[in-house]
Amino acid sequence: MNRPSNQLFDAYFTQSDMRDIFSDEGRVQGMLDFEAALARAQARVGLIPQQVVADIEQSCRAELFDFDELAIAIGSAGNSAIPLVKALGRQIAARNPQAERYVHMGATSQDVMDSGLVLQIRRAIVLLERDLAQLAKALAEQAQRHAATPLAGRTWLQQATPVTLGMKIAGWLGAITRHRQRLNEIKPRLLCLQFGGASGSLAALGDRAFPVAQALAGELQLELPEQPWHTQRDRLVEFASVLGLIAGSLGKLGRDVSLLMQTEVGEVFEPSAPGKGGSSTMPHKRNPVGAAVMIGAATRAPGLVATMLSAMPQEHERSLGLWHAEWETLPELCCLVSGSLQQALQVIPGLQVDAERMRVNLESTQGLVLAEAVSIALAQRIGRDAAHHLIEQCCRRAVEQGAHLRQVLGDNPQVSEQLTCAELDRLLDPAHYLGQARLWVERAVAEHTRISR
Amino acid sequence: MNRPSNQLFDAYFTQSDMRDIFSDEGRVQGMLDFEAALARAQARVGLIPQQVVADIEQSCRAELFDFDELAIAIGSAGNSAIPLVKALGRQIAARNPQAERYVHMGATSQDVMDSGLVLQIRRAIVLLERDLAQLAKALAEQAQRHAATPLAGRTWLQQATPVTLGMKIAGWLGAITRHRQRLNEIKPRLLCLQFGGASGSLAALGDRAFPVAQALAGELQLELPEQPWHTQRDRLVEFASVLGLIAGSLGKLGRDVSLLMQTEVGEVFEPSAPGKGGSSTMPHKRNPVGAAVMIGAATRAPGLVATMLSAMPQEHERSLGLWHAEWETLPELCCLVSGSLQQALQVIPGLQVDAERMRVNLESTQGLVLAEAVSIALAQRIGRDAAHHLIEQCCRRAVEQGAHLRQVLGDNPQVSEQLTCAELDRLLDPAHYLGQARLWVERAVAEHTRISR
Amino acid sequence: MNRPSNQLFDAYFTQSDMRDIFSDEGRVQGMLDFEAALARAQARVGLIPQQVVADIEQSCRAELFDFDELAIAIGSAGNSAIPLVKALGRQIAARNPQAERYVHMGATSQDVMDSGLVLQIRRAIVLLERDLAQLAKALAEQAQRHAATPLAGRTWLQQATPVTLGMKIAGWLGAITRHRQRLNEIKPRLLCLQFGGASGSLAALGDRAFPVAQALAGELQLELPEQPWHTQRDRLVEFASVLGLIAGSLGKLGRDVSLLMQTEVGEVFEPSAPGKGGSSTMPHKRNPVGAAVMIGAATRAPGLVATMLSAMPQEHERSLGLWHAEWETLPELCCLVSGSLQQALQVIPGLQVDAERMRVNLESTQGLVLAEAVSIALAQRIGRDAAHHLIEQCCRRAVEQGAHLRQVLGDNPQVSEQLTCAELDRLLDPAHYLGQARLWVERAVAEHTRISR
Amino acid sequence: MNRPSNQLFDAYFTQSDMRDIFSDEGRVQGMLDFEAALARAQARVGLIPQQVVADIEQSCRAELFDFDELAIAIGSAGNSAIPLVKALGRQIAARNPQAERYVHMGATSQDVMDSGLVLQIRRAIVLLERDLAQLAKALAEQAQRHAATPLAGRTWLQQATPVTLGMKIAGWLGAITRHRQRLNEIKPRLLCLQFGGASGSLAALGDRAFPVAQALAGELQLELPEQPWHTQRDRLVEFASVLGLIAGSLGKLGRDVSLLMQTEVGEVFEPSAPGKGGSSTMPHKRNPVGAAVMIGAATRAPGLVATMLSAMPQEHERSLGLWHAEWETLPELCCLVSGSLQQALQVIPGLQVDAERMRVNLESTQGLVLAEAVSIALAQRIGRDAAHHLIEQCCRRAVEQGAHLRQVLGDNPQVSEQLTCAELDRLLDPAHYLGQARLWVERAVAEHTRISR
Repeated sequence: MNRPSNQLFDAYFTQSDMRDIFSDEGRVQGMLDFEAALARAQARVGLIPQQVVADIEQSCRAELFDFDELAIAIGSAGNSAIPLVKALGRQIAARNPQAERYVHMGATSQDVMDSGLVLQIRRAIVLLERDLAQLAKALAEQAQRHAATPLAGRTWLQQATPVTLGMKIAGWLGAITRHRQRLNEIKPRLLCLQFGGASGSLAALGDRAFPVAQALAGELQLELPEQPWHTQRDRLVEFASVLGLIAGSLGKLGRDVSLLMQTEVGEVFEPSAPGKGGSSTMPHKRNPVGAAVMIGAATRAPGLVATMLSAMPQEHERSLGLWHAEWETLPELCCLVSGSLQQALQVIPGLQVDAERMRVNLESTQGLVLAEAVSIALAQRIGRDAAHHLIEQCCRRAVEQGAHLRQVLGDNPQVSEQLTCAELDRLLDPAHYLGQARLWVERAVAEHTRISR
Repeated sequence: MNRPSNQLFDAYFTQSDMRDIFSDEGRVQGMLDFEAALARAQARVGLIPQQVVADIEQSCRAELFDFDELAIAIGSAGNSAIPLVKALGRQIAARNPQAERYVHMGATSQDVMDSGLVLQIRRAIVLLERDLAQLAKALAEQAQRHAATPLAGRTWLQQATPVTLGMKIAGWLGAITRHRQRLNEIKPRLLCLQFGGASGSLAALGDRAFPVAQALAGELQLELPEQPWHTQRDRLVEFASVLGLIAGSLGKLGRDVSLLMQTEVGEVFEPSAPGKGGSSTMPHKRNPVGAAVMIGAATRAPGLVATMLSAMPQEHERSLGLWHAEWETLPELCCLVSGSLQQALQVIPGLQVDAERMRVNLESTQGLVLAEAVSIALAQRIGRDAAHHLIEQCCRRAVEQGAHLRQVLGDNPQVSEQLTCAELDRLLDPAHYLGQARLWVERAVAEHTRISR
Repeated sequence: MNRPSNQLFDAYFTQSDMRDIFSDEGRVQGMLDFEAALARAQARVGLIPQQVVADIEQSCRAELFDFDELAIAIGSAGNSAIPLVKALGRQIAARNPQAERYVHMGATSQDVMDSGLVLQIRRAIVLLERDLAQLAKALAEQAQRHAATPLAGRTWLQQATPVTLGMKIAGWLGAITRHRQRLNEIKPRLLCLQFGGASGSLAALGDRAFPVAQALAGELQLELPEQPWHTQRDRLVEFASVLGLIAGSLGKLGRDVSLLMQTEVGEVFEPSAPGKGGSSTMPHKRNPVGAAVMIGAATRAPGLVATMLSAMPQEHERSLGLWHAEWETLPELCCLVSGSLQQALQVIPGLQVDAERMRVNLESTQGLVLAEAVSIALAQRIGRDAAHHLIEQCCRRAVEQGAHLRQVLGDNPQVSEQLTCAELDRLLDPAHYLGQARLWVERAVAEHTRISR
Repeated sequence: MNRPSNQLFDAYFTQSDMRDIFSDEGRVQGMLDFEAALARAQARVGLIPQQVVADIEQSCRAELFDFDELAIAIGSAGNSAIPLVKALGRQIAARNPQAERYVHMGATSQDVMDSGLVLQIRRAIVLLERDLAQLAKALAEQAQRHAATPLAGRTWLQQATPVTLGMKIAGWLGAITRHRQRLNEIKPRLLCLQFGGASGSLAALGDRAFPVAQALAGELQLELPEQPWHTQRDRLVEFASVLGLIAGSLGKLGRDVSLLMQTEVGEVFEPSAPGKGGSSTMPHKRNPVGAAVMIGAATRAPGLVATMLSAMPQEHERSLGLWHAEWETLPELCCLVSGSLQQALQVIPGLQVDAERMRVNLESTQGLVLAEAVSIALAQRIGRDAAHHLIEQCCRRAVEQGAHLRQVLGDNPQVSEQLTCAELDRLLDPAHYLGQARLWVERAVAEHTRISR
């Protein structure tokens, strides 16, 4: 393009496979695939001569077109299909002047653009499914590997009762598994033909209209919807929502990783690589450059999903402006999510875990994070409020005296009356207070396995 | 409440059934239902004595609680469960001092709040499904009734080739049918128990944890998820997205109705009612007061869905702030969608249709909207570009001369060479250029019928 | 109201003064104040008899009206002004049947609603200005108090070179100071009369129209805009944006506080209070319940601002749907921001600071956070890249050996060649590497003082 | 770039001048301008030798750099400054190995990126101010030209009392005038230096820090802020908000134009141009291709502004992820607004107006749109409610009988009792019921003139 490039952050924020799909060439090829299939379908039902099909098909290759010229013509035409169809006509005419009249018959610009987009989306979903499956596999492995590695649970950013790293990862996995289910469920609704002609009635094709539509859907291997959907955009917006959900879950993963990587926590790290995450002024730092992308995508996706939702009330049979608002927004969402997945796939398999630091951190409250264990045990003997009150007192005393909770509890007659030393020791050992952590891992992995079949 | 009310627009924007669910009482009752079921479940597995269950259950009625007091305590506690459980403890203790210690055992605040919310959502979905089914039925009837009523198709807000009102309504119906499918698909994911205790491991319940969880899910008739989901919010956000999609589709319906009600169009009207849509200064006006709500909800929903998405990257085992951002947002979305549905249910069954005005409007371009019919016919004889060019000329001439296109075409020798008078007449008759309009209605209704079984 | 209440989180999320303004009573009173002022203005220019003014004014008290009845009528009328003016007419007629005809003359519903809203906003701005001023004062005091208290700077959530707590607080202060400037700048644009009659031309008032408009603006002490602005909503949306900015800055403050309160950091705490931030299951925890509100508001505000922006393309002279989308959105934003400010005002003055813990944390990297100081010093002697490379090596070695950077540097001949022991000691002392921290505090406080005059 | 292009809609949606600024080259040059100025400033205060400045400056030209290589390095580094500074070092070293060590001294990556961005924004504002001024001028001319051209006012998309086209345009103008004021007000806050070094304290520069900062601000002709603002993003977000406001106002303009261009209204048209807005299937149509861009930008801007707001709570001294979320979002907003302005500048000066059609449309309700005039007149004699009721009856009768309101009123004895035939004729003439329309134009133009000085 003559226009200056604007891709400095592309390698960081977007997967190159996804960018290929949502490039000018990918867009144009999607539309050309529609035109070629339309010609085949119309020849199949006898609407156009079989012999022109090859000429049309051979002209339907994106590399034959001048994107600069197209871009300028789009500025006048108000959409990308009109100038493309004109240029395509010229291509075809150059091969076979008789063939030109048989292209794009009965279709409207939006048929071309929407169906082309659906073809792009189908390619995008292949990538997304591949990446989500790979990520789920990596998460399942890591969840199992660290199923028994205790670390502090953290609620409200404060240490709480212990969990395991595997359980934490199982949470990340669960969301990915559900996203895979979602993608699977929406595909039949999403991957469907757009074909309605000027106002959606396909009137221009007379009584051949429906057979052409059926043949066209067959050629493109898309669902034939119950009717055209030019201004019913819920299929696309539902896809956008699923993309937003994926971005959100990866944002949560990135947020957790970045918090665990904090200097003061230091329990988990993105895998290191030469030049990765270095700081220009602080040579010792290893910045969470993968998490940054995941958090960034999760911050940007909601606004883009909102744009897609805002663009739904499209007027009558075809909209102006609201439709236009989709053109760059949905591709951007796909690209952002692909980039976020790309980082997750770099971070998860090589995740560096410092189990010893986790153990140290768990001790940092001197037993306070296990106060619940004692509180529960006491509650069964002296009642919940009394136990709660008593433990609160002991915790406060431990904090004031800078003492370990074990000691304060041991010194407290009300406590010792109820709990023996051995009981207290056991209650304050994190390894004995992991509850169902392992079961959650097993169940999340089982669900993953079930869905992956 | 002592706080002043803030409900002036509630009757207009929100269905009262839905407001009941998402009222203070609805919220509190949802949480209390969780506590009562927890007691039953824990008694069932032998964790607490069976005889305290009745005392707990009888205290779990929202009307026993002082919401003002609760609201103030929430301001200190930072969530609604802590003060409620305290107040509940007092209620139980008043009945039976022995029973108080057995309430809320092993649960954390977010278990109560999230599960309570899910119970509210289940009630909300019943309403949504009821309304969507009723709306779909009304739309199906109207689509069939007006299946052959021609009106101008409109693209880019300009008249295009004709469609039928039934086909237009079938488009609205199609979206509603898909939303019903979506709601159905997400229910197993959405309507599931939250139960994890302090950090999600249920450690406080020892080896009774999982049996309690199973029994609790059974008591509440909720799915038992593969693991707790305190900071994996995709289930709720997916629901928010579906609400956003519904709002968007109803916004499109409202947009169409309001455009068709324009003074200069006047083809379709909201049913009139005394005092409905009157203007304080223009006594003759009948404002689209139903459409206003539908458009308004479609304008507000995207921001609220975006908030839910933005709140996904919740830290570690339980979040601060992001979780809080959900508390009023999801209920607001439910209420807005209920209000939008309420208006659609008032507008659609009694929709007033002026078929004669549609006919007149179709004539207003003096045949131009049927230029495509002629263009297509010509293209098959003289090529697409030539035909397009010729018809463009004729259309321009018709506009310049203020003449009917039929006359200009008849006068044009290039046209007459190809098309007879009778052919021209037929080509310019809207009733002969409705294409698959009726089929789209049939297919949309068939899909509706299939899904409604 | 008969409608069930929905205010459980109000005391936590919203300031009660602000809720009073944006309650049903506040809304109705705003509209009634407009009607009373209109009567006075019209009497002043001789359009209506002076003697009816008192009857009108005395009827313009919100407590005279039945809000339930109004709410239901709004559902039919499509706005709040029509039923209110009807009810007002009845009130006036009961006092003086002659006076009723003189109310609301020449005004349209949106005049009443918009001007009433502007009056509410004026009250809201008084609160906001009061709170922002008070918060700025508290921040300025804290910034100065802790101007020389070193703690680790943190970039990408990793420890970096030291800063001071005062400098950090000065950053919070700077944003608040700018918000005060912004509010001040927008007031003349925002606080202006809406008065245009049916289509905005004030035609109904004939040649008295402009004098009435002037008198009315005078009565209400609002600016008289250059023209009515029924569908030019930038004034309100600009206000919404400023509210969004305030929410964002307080969200940053809350984010910082919550991160500093982390168990593993423990440098700064929200002031404690009985029952504040307790956890139902972890008796020792002190949750950042104030920060939660600030983060929550910052998460919700963007979607609400987006709604206001989305509602800008309002059709022609008065819009349907887009206008409706504003009605509850702008009040909600005001309330959220008031609640966020309320928490900031509770957190900042009593902020608990653990300077000793800051010192300990600064040591936790064993000198790494001061590597830059050494790197810079070396760069001036051996070049930037060489220095960077050398320090990177030393830092890596320090990490590998678990040694203090001071020791590794001292042992390194390339380093010792350039820097003496004394130089190294000084370079690694945080107190000697605070740069302009104190100056930033002084400048921020100076700017605050300047703006507060 | 090796990456495939993605600019098919750029010529349509974005002004090429603005794209130049926010291209890879524009971004890189902004950062290099910072580095060059830093060298000059540091030489000025004697921190680095004067003789290296030329070598540094000459290396600071974007065309010397390989953007592909940069893009890939950004993926590892996590920001664009680290790899650029490295590459810059190599460039400088090739000229003068002694000079390399003097570049980027004391600065951090975000200093370079933020200050570079501010330099880009300054260039962007020049374009925005130019376009807004030009648009305001065109609007002022059109408002005056059509100051007395009556057309139907339209509220709720229904015809209301008449307005003039000039008054309508004056409304568009008023918003643009206010946006110019806003841009002017925010410039001192926005166009300021970012310079803080690693953690914001500028410690690396010792006691030369502040003089360097002052000199650097001077070199770049940027304001020197009271302190660095790495994680206080309100300046940028405020700019984003103003961009959102501009997009919203232009969206309103585009919405109005597209509604007026409707086939059934036909009062105003975008200027025609060959190939502009043609439809591939409806040769007679002239689509509002300019309005589509304006509406599209207004639909996309809110989500992008929301993203900027959502990214405000940036952690500590420098954020990860939230900062990243800004990088492409703010440029995208600038580009969208530039494209929307570009279309407005094409539409407004050549706006085609059909005053005759306006007159015809005004008659289409057979007098109903002037019912208010009669109602007001009657109200003064028989009371507001009585008059309202009577006119409602007459209007309903007129509608039922398909009669002109003038006739129904003349036939009604209650009316004739109060109003003579001549009075009725005058009351029903639109030209006599334009109120302050002309004054609003004058005042809007006066405000425009005042601000343009």
